[in-house]
Amino acid sequence: MPYSHYRDYPADILARAAKIRLACFDVDGTLTDGRLWLDDAGREAKAFNVHDGLGLSLLRRFGIAVAFVTARKGEVAVRRANELGAEAHIDVRDKLACVSDIVSRHSLGLEQVAFMGDDIVDLHVLRACGLAVAPANAHPWVRERVHWRTHANGGDGAARELCDLLLGAQGHAEELLA
Amino acid sequence: MPYSHYRDYPADILARAAKIRLACFDVDGTLTDGRLWLDDAGREAKAFNVHDGLGLSLLRRFGIAVAFVTARKGEVAVRRANELGAEAHIDVRDKLACVSDIVSRHSLGLEQVAFMGDDIVDLHVLRACGLAVAPANAHPWVRERVHWRTHANGGDGAARELCDLLLGAQGHAEELLA
Amino acid sequence: MPYSHYRDYPADILARAAKIRLACFDVDGTLTDGRLWLDDAGREAKAFNVHDGLGLSLLRRFGIAVAFVTARKGEVAVRRANELGAEAHIDVRDKLACVSDIVSRHSLGLEQVAFMGDDIVDLHVLRACGLAVAPANAHPWVRERVHWRTHANGGDGAARELCDLLLGAQGHAEELLA
Amino acid sequence: MPYSHYRDYPADILARAAKIRLACFDVDGTLTDGRLWLDDAGREAKAFNVHDGLGLSLLRRFGIAVAFVTARKGEVAVRRANELGAEAHIDVRDKLACVSDIVSRHSLGLEQVAFMGDDIVDLHVLRACGLAVAPANAHPWVRERVHWRTHANGGDGAARELCDLLLGAQGHAEELLA
Repeated sequence: MPYSHYRDYPADILARAAKIRLACFDVDGTLTDGRLWLDDAGREAKAFNVHDGLGLSLLRRFGIAVAFVTARKGEVAVRRANELGAEAHIDVRDKLACVSDIVSRHSLGLEQVAFMGDDIVDLHVLRACGLAVAPANAHPWVRERVHWRTHANGGDGAARELCDLLLGAQGHAEELLA
Repeated sequence: MPYSHYRDYPADILARAAKIRLACFDVDGTLTDGRLWLDDAGREAKAFNVHDGLGLSLLRRFGIAVAFVTARKGEVAVRRANELGAEAHIDVRDKLACVSDIVSRHSLGLEQVAFMGDDIVDLHVLRACGLAVAPANAHPWVRERVHWRTHANGGDGAARELCDLLLGAQGHAEELLA
Repeated sequence: MPYSHYRDYPADILARAAKIRLACFDVDGTLTDGRLWLDDAGREAKAFNVHDGLGLSLLRRFGIAVAFVTARKGEVAVRRANELGAEAHIDVRDKLACVSDIVSRHSLGLEQVAFMGDDIVDLHVLRACGLAVAPANAHPWVRERVHWRTHANGGDGAARELCDLLLGAQGHAEELLA
Repeated sequence: MPYSHYRDYPADILARAAKIRLACFDVDGTLTDGRLWLDDAGREAKAFNVHDGLGLSLLRRFGIAVAFVTARKGEVAVRRANELGAEAHIDVRDKLACVSDIVSRHSLGLEQVAFMGDDIVDLHVLRACGLAVAPANAHPWVRERVHWRTHANGGDGAARELCDLLLGAQGHAEELLA
């Protein structure tokens, strides 16, 4: 039984999800648990999730573009994006402007964009996109202002839940399980 | 709806929070989950939280000074403080003396200081400050001796809750969500 | 009282477990919590569990072969396998083909193989093996399609639970506690 | 109100704790959460807890010796022990023999020794010591065979709970809070 069925997604969420051609993700707190490991040699690390990674790869296989959009600098997000075939936009001051540029380049409308973010710097772009999603443990000010919240926390499968929603709403779940 | 409303902070906590001009934070167990990663090459790492980081940046934007006050040596805390524009005081033997010095330098009174800590070495300074806060998972001897405990654990958004309390009590929540 | 008793494993699970001569494990999400730590120096790390490690060593002591079978590249899984005396198969495109090769080499049948995995790339091989197991937090599409789910999550003792099941079902629990 | 009071430790546990002059700790799974971070450069890391560290330092201040006793090789445990003034015994095949040697050297009896461990390799020594303790998430075969289980998991404050028990049972809690 596919995931999209037993979760009983609301009809309006499925309708929004059916239109999505571009899925954009904040990085820290969304694709990670929000932790930054700093060591005394000056290095920074963060932890991505393999479940999310597989989901993002599946989106691309089924024709949905993927982009990371983060305010933070640093090569770690770029490296993870490259591994998964996603666009990486780092050190972004205006996330809505960044997403609007991607949308123009792909000849899409904002109603075809899903954005997943977890903190107040994501509010502006979340309000503009066709499907606004937050991880379960997003900041309360964000959690209350999105179309859909995942069951999982950021970095613990939240992004994969969005991937599964999109794949299910677009009729690809049965093929994946064949 | 702003965070400060639906959380229904008690009136005395809001009154204390309204006066704060300096927010001081212990590091390990307060800004982190208390874990120290040691590797066989002799390095030490710890994990900070991006939600906390954004909250500390917002405090400074609204004129509340931020200081880290830790008994532990090591450059990691200094590096994180620098990234966020906070003062870093490491290898501190007497936290109350350290905070009193900062208070004098800023021409403040201790009733204008919030201190957040999680273990018994913080008890002396916690007793002296205008707003004494502990993360949800602070040591029991500390949890019972503060004005306010956060819902989140140390390193998992506890510091951000204090930031949101201060911003809400000082009337900045609506502006952040505009 | 041995673990195998108070957990009250179902009879069909015990019957399947009694036949196993080869235990195969996916790595990320099964032997780990699915997190990949990436740092800005280009390194990747993942976290294995000592409880799992002891269980895998015990399997080998009692004559059950152990193999890691992962789609991901990288030397970390190989290193952990070497430490525990397990076979390491990385960068595997077709897990069922890989396991079938191991089975032939050991002159076993697939009904003598336990496979533990947590995501949809494991479904094909899980369907073919004598005992299909998933960690508690496996992807829902996998959780519904295995013979047995552990109480523990991946990387938090899930593999050890399978080891204990096999050891208990094959009558070695008392010896371990003697 | 001291920790030792509101926890309502059972009388026999307090009686055992009052006699302890040496506290011995397994490392992985007891002083850590049992995770081993391995990276592709060949390094190994594990995470210790600052709450535990403060507790172990307090034991020494009040005249209770501390030793780490681990079957695993590696300099990380030695480094943490040195930082806290504890004896480090690594690569130990027979934990009871090791603890017996320490006991002889300190002119103590085994009834004056507390041992905290989490897996079946600790069972032999746990059975011999005056106070046998396991973290909340110890292996079930161990959890059932100790005098006392902590509320906290290994690496998340379990060792600190034992330290607090010993300090409380020996009448030092009030002094710590003065």
